[in-house]
Amino acid sequence: MVQKFAVSDASFERSPGQDEDIFAANMVDQKNGGPITVGFGRYGPNQTLSEVLAVNDVMVVLSGKLSVTGPSGMVTGAVGEVIYMPKGEQVTIRSHEEGAVTAYVTYPHWQEAGTD
Amino acid sequence: MVQKFAVSDASFERSPGQDEDIFAANMVDQKNGGPITVGFGRYGPNQTLSEVLAVNDVMVVLSGKLSVTGPSGMVTGAVGEVIYMPKGEQVTIRSHEEGAVTAYVTYPHWQEAGTD
Repeated sequence: MVQKFAVSDASFERSPGQDEDIFAANMVDQKNGGPITVGFGRYGPNQTLSEVLAVNDVMVVLSGKLSVTGPSGMVTGAVGEVIYMPKGEQVTIRSHEEGAVTAYVTYPHWQEAGTD
Repeated sequence: MVQKFAVSDASFERSPGQDEDIFAANMVDQKNGGPITVGFGRYGPNQTLSEVLAVNDVMVVLSGKLSVTGPSGMVTGAVGEVIYMPKGEQVTIRSHEEGAVTAYVTYPHWQEAGTD
C-alpha cells in the first residue's frame, strides 16, 4: 500500500548496541512483508556511532548535518543531501552541534541483519 | 564506498516512457555493483506520471509537494516527508503548482526492472 510518513508520525527508540543519543523509528520493515526498511533517525548534538554496516543504508538529511567516515575518507551531508553507505563497510557516523534528523532506507532489513 | 550526493551533482534525464516534464538522475545504480538505486527526481509544475511499479520505490520530498494515488487512496508528501510505494502497485504520481524535487531509493534497480 502506498504510504506517506512524516517525522511527527515516528516513535523513536534508541538504536541498539549503543548508549549515545541516537534514535531510530522504522516506518516500514520486515513486518510489512516487503524487502526494504524505511524509517527516520534522530541524533542529538555531537553523537558518534561506529559500526560495520550489516545492510546497504541510505540516509537523507532532513535537518542538521551528519558526517560519515569510511575507509576512503569522510563525507558530510547537509539538509537535502543523501549519504550512501554500502553493506560491509566500517563507518563512523557523527552528528554536529545542531544534531540531525534523517530519513533512511535499508536493504535488506537492518533489524534482521543485526547492526554490528 | 561511502558517498554523499547533492541535487547540484545530478545530471537529470527525462524519465523513460513519458513526455512529461519529469526527470531522473541515478547517483548509484546497477553500474556500482550494489543491490539498490539511489537518485534524484525533478518534476515540473502539475505533471502526472502513471505506472505499475516494477520495483519498490521510496521518495523523500526535498522541495515542493507530490501526491501519489494508489489502489487504496491518495497521499501527499511535503518537504521532509517520505512516500513509500511497494512493487506491483498501480500508481499515479502528480506534482503541484510549485513542482517538486525528490531523493529516491529503489530495490531492485528500476533501470533493470523496466518502468511500466
